[in-house]
Amino acid sequence: MVYTSLENKKIKELRKLKQRKYRDKTNHFLIDGKHLVEEAYQTGCLDTIILLEENQDVVSYSDVEVMVVTKEIMKVLSDVETPPNIMGVCHKPELSTGQNKILLLDGVQDPGNLGTIIRSAVAFHVDMIYVGKNSVDVYNSKVIRSSQGMIFKVPIQVVALEEIIPELKKLDIPILGTKVTGGNRLKSFPKLEKFAIIMGNEGNGVRPEILDLCDQYLYIDMKEDCESLNVAVATSIILYELDK
Amino acid sequence: MVYTSLENKKIKELRKLKQRKYRDKTNHFLIDGKHLVEEAYQTGCLDTIILLEENQDVVSYSDVEVMVVTKEIMKVLSDVETPPNIMGVCHKPELSTGQNKILLLDGVQDPGNLGTIIRSAVAFHVDMIYVGKNSVDVYNSKVIRSSQGMIFKVPIQVVALEEIIPELKKLDIPILGTKVTGGNRLKSFPKLEKFAIIMGNEGNGVRPEILDLCDQYLYIDMKEDCESLNVAVATSIILYELDK
Repeated sequence: MVYTSLENKKIKELRKLKQRKYRDKTNHFLIDGKHLVEEAYQTGCLDTIILLEENQDVVSYSDVEVMVVTKEIMKVLSDVETPPNIMGVCHKPELSTGQNKILLLDGVQDPGNLGTIIRSAVAFHVDMIYVGKNSVDVYNSKVIRSSQGMIFKVPIQVVALEEIIPELKKLDIPILGTKVTGGNRLKSFPKLEKFAIIMGNEGNGVRPEILDLCDQYLYIDMKEDCESLNVAVATSIILYELDK
Repeated sequence: MVYTSLENKKIKELRKLKQRKYRDKTNHFLIDGKHLVEEAYQTGCLDTIILLEENQDVVSYSDVEVMVVTKEIMKVLSDVETPPNIMGVCHKPELSTGQNKILLLDGVQDPGNLGTIIRSAVAFHVDMIYVGKNSVDVYNSKVIRSSQGMIFKVPIQVVALEEIIPELKKLDIPILGTKVTGGNRLKSFPKLEKFAIIMGNEGNGVRPEILDLCDQYLYIDMKEDCESLNVAVATSIILYELDK
């Protein structure tokens, strides 16, 4: 059977997943392309494969429902300019949370930045990401694409940062923030067994009331007439340097 | 006088600058927003300011022509979703070229990545960027925005990399590339007075025939099941680490 109508009830439900509120409500989200589908399957998050009717690749995973759709439907479900041959419907992963190397994000707005940060976080052994409620949705399709599937490899929780930070302090995890005045040079920053680093919004950085909760501050050395780095770059450099 | 017609000859010429071939032909390009206009003015690249007719800010620079336009025209000239109050027309900067810390880019395609790389290059004291002809246009408006104006602070030349690399070798500048097998760990890589590092395309990296021209190779340590980093992130980490 091939789904051909945009008015089909099931297709209509899938289309709703393009909006954050339905992703939040159902705990499901869409992914594009073979690479992400494979990553999702390996993590056990893949519920449904959506295949283009003229798709040549034979894709078959046990326990995963297959839906075959027309090009028109694929185009509507995907955000990619050239719609993929394959998409997937996933449930949000539940990975075992670590509490050694933690990243907190306060209001990151650009989906490309958030995805890139998640990708780097996995590369540099972060074992838990707390995303503030004021950030872009983690399950936005551009975030997922930019993460290159790494979204399935690190536990991510959406939280109120002002509530989680005191909990981390109780566990004796040092809370790190970035600040030039009164901060320590990243290059000579001591290696820590455990830490939680807070990074912030593209334009405004970390909110002052959150930054005040930090135990230590660090900064990245750079040329004087350069005001700042892209937030995904700054986060990645810090995680790279703190990674043993 | 307010420009009101999209058919005006001058407005039509400005519209052409949204295409690479006209930017290449005229050596001029458009920029959006006050911050970029200020940066361009400081570098002496700003030829014309384009102001929205109801713009409240008084902007005046000596020796810079001012054009006042309608919202409709601003919308057509700008690529930004919410058109800015101010734009600028610039000529391509001619900055004095350095030959100590050099970045070569082979086929970087995403304008956001190229802009972010330029921003980081300035932060970490790169004094010359050679962009391969197979890369996205440096004067694409998204590249300029992502560079946060840093495009005016480092000399950039579009070249055939296979021609420039032998020239750099004659100057005894070590050519560095990235390679995991047979490469050196970036963390323990010696600091160099002079270097030229080559970074590549988002999906395919540096072309093999270019990579073969390198004198030394390095790699960034990362978790095993993470295949790679975003190219802007990888470039920034390497430049950060090589920066004395």
